[in-house]
Amino acid sequence: MNEIREVIEGKAALLETGDAKAVLSHYADTYVEYTLAPPLRQPGDARDPAALAAWMATFQTPPHREVTQLEITTDGDVAFATSLDSLTATPRGATEGFTLWFRVTLGLRRIDGRWLVTHEHESVPFEMDGSFRASVTLRP
Amino acid sequence: MNEIREVIEGKAALLETGDAKAVLSHYADTYVEYTLAPPLRQPGDARDPAALAAWMATFQTPPHREVTQLEITTDGDVAFATSLDSLTATPRGATEGFTLWFRVTLGLRRIDGRWLVTHEHESVPFEMDGSFRASVTLRP
Repeated sequence: MNEIREVIEGKAALLETGDAKAVLSHYADTYVEYTLAPPLRQPGDARDPAALAAWMATFQTPPHREVTQLEITTDGDVAFATSLDSLTATPRGATEGFTLWFRVTLGLRRIDGRWLVTHEHESVPFEMDGSFRASVTLRP
Repeated sequence: MNEIREVIEGKAALLETGDAKAVLSHYADTYVEYTLAPPLRQPGDARDPAALAAWMATFQTPPHREVTQLEITTDGDVAFATSLDSLTATPRGATEGFTLWFRVTLGLRRIDGRWLVTHEHESVPFEMDGSFRASVTLRP
């Protein structure tokens, strides 16, 4: 359980260092990825460090990620974890930063003795008032 | 694995019968729920059959749910499952129905010999073009 918590909190902390390879070292070679942005499911089987680095470079400094309300359920070599996370960043060219809160579910497997993320699902809900607006201003 | 698949496909099929209690019999007494609509996390510890029945009653007939690309990872008494699901329904008073595709992650635990859902995360992504629109027209 502690080991899994360290993976999850560790990779969140690594984001701020801007080291894309180090972040992705916590992911399995193939995994199922549901991101905040479309498509419904990422087509790639492995995350590309260059793509993650390029995304981080759209901000003045790499985003700060906070993991809250982390709950881990595990047995044997399988685990899933839920949390409410926030990302705080200032896009390049913007005068003000933002903090976005979103839901996170991770699926993990212990492979060759190491816990790796094999599934990641990140999302915000959307307003059911007919506007179909993503709910990007919610806080836990 | 087969037992877990039956729970997931069974509760999807049950939705169409309109039997809220039967659907919810596949859920543990307490679970973590991230729904399509706000808030970020449902505050209730247990889903209310009356609330589910009331939601189903907003449609001309109970929604039809389809589960696709189901992948299950399990060890011992813990499992997580990913899928892309669709909900097809016609709201009361509407002349046309809709089909909404969304991502689903389930966490399950075997409790007293029965697999039960202890976590459900349903979402659509949102457009990162500055519009913050929920992506409700995607298809797998």
